[in-house]
Amino acid sequence: MGAILNGLELEQLQQLVAQVQADPEAARSLNRWSARVRWLGGFKGRAYIRNHSFLIDEPADLVGKDEAPNAVEYVLGALGACLTVGFVLNATKHGIPIRNLEIALDGEIDNILTFLGLSEEGHPGYREIVVKAYVDADADEGTLQKIWAETVRTSPVGNTLARSVALRPELSRIAAS
Amino acid sequence: MGAILNGLELEQLQQLVAQVQADPEAARSLNRWSARVRWLGGFKGRAYIRNHSFLIDEPADLVGKDEAPNAVEYVLGALGACLTVGFVLNATKHGIPIRNLEIALDGEIDNILTFLGLSEEGHPGYREIVVKAYVDADADEGTLQKIWAETVRTSPVGNTLARSVALRPELSRIAAS
Repeated sequence: MGAILNGLELEQLQQLVAQVQADPEAARSLNRWSARVRWLGGFKGRAYIRNHSFLIDEPADLVGKDEAPNAVEYVLGALGACLTVGFVLNATKHGIPIRNLEIALDGEIDNILTFLGLSEEGHPGYREIVVKAYVDADADEGTLQKIWAETVRTSPVGNTLARSVALRPELSRIAAS
Repeated sequence: MGAILNGLELEQLQQLVAQVQADPEAARSLNRWSARVRWLGGFKGRAYIRNHSFLIDEPADLVGKDEAPNAVEYVLGALGACLTVGFVLNATKHGIPIRNLEIALDGEIDNILTFLGLSEEGHPGYREIVVKAYVDADADEGTLQKIWAETVRTSPVGNTLARSVALRPELSRIAAS
């Protein structure tokens, strides 16, 4: 086993970079991600992703059983996770050891009443998300701010949220088997 | 206990609607959602949301330990869950019993190389997400398509993705305690 920084094997990281540079097809496969969600009754569902799955539910005041976070909460968690991974990746590239990293996210929906069909004003999506990162690392403030700016700029979930994604929805009616 | 349709207590659903109509402050509180993410080493993190938490990791070919879905996969799961909740809500409003509902999501990142710092072309966010819903319910095709269109139009995560969210990122350097 080679050198490890921030829990990452540096050789493995270099191999990934070499691989996607040498083989555009390998890079292309990293562009495609999939999930399935099965309804479990009420507002509860389970998402299946490769070898993993997770529950989604609504809190009791939104008529759920509160067995898991809801969909808009998962979006915040995903953004925080994405920025965590990006920051660790970029700090590791610069050889900076991180001691602690935590990200707090607060999102504001434009108008949730539109989701409930009670208003035509605005929309039910997030209007704004405030992201506060707290980091303890062996580097000066300026370096950490530069890594953070780079991380935000190159974040997959950050760009997904800041830009318009084209959604292609379709519904098929299936018969009971 | 009153009437139940699709696992939802209809009286509870009516109470929620009456409450947010009568009390704008209650509605406003449903617009705000929060999460925290703590780094656990490598590309692993845990999101904390109210009384819940979940792991996020990267697959082995992205230098993770593959203990959980990654951030961009959680986004797809969140979209599927949001459309599931919305479809069940809208079908229940119309008095339609659902027997089965499953949603498959396939997302395409514009250019993941930008995340790895290996390209300046495009961006690392989702460009397009194909969403296929499969439903078995006691209603004709036209009614189900109408409910689906309404669900997509009023989806919180759908609108979050289809529109531009304003991200307000900041980083604070903390000292080891």
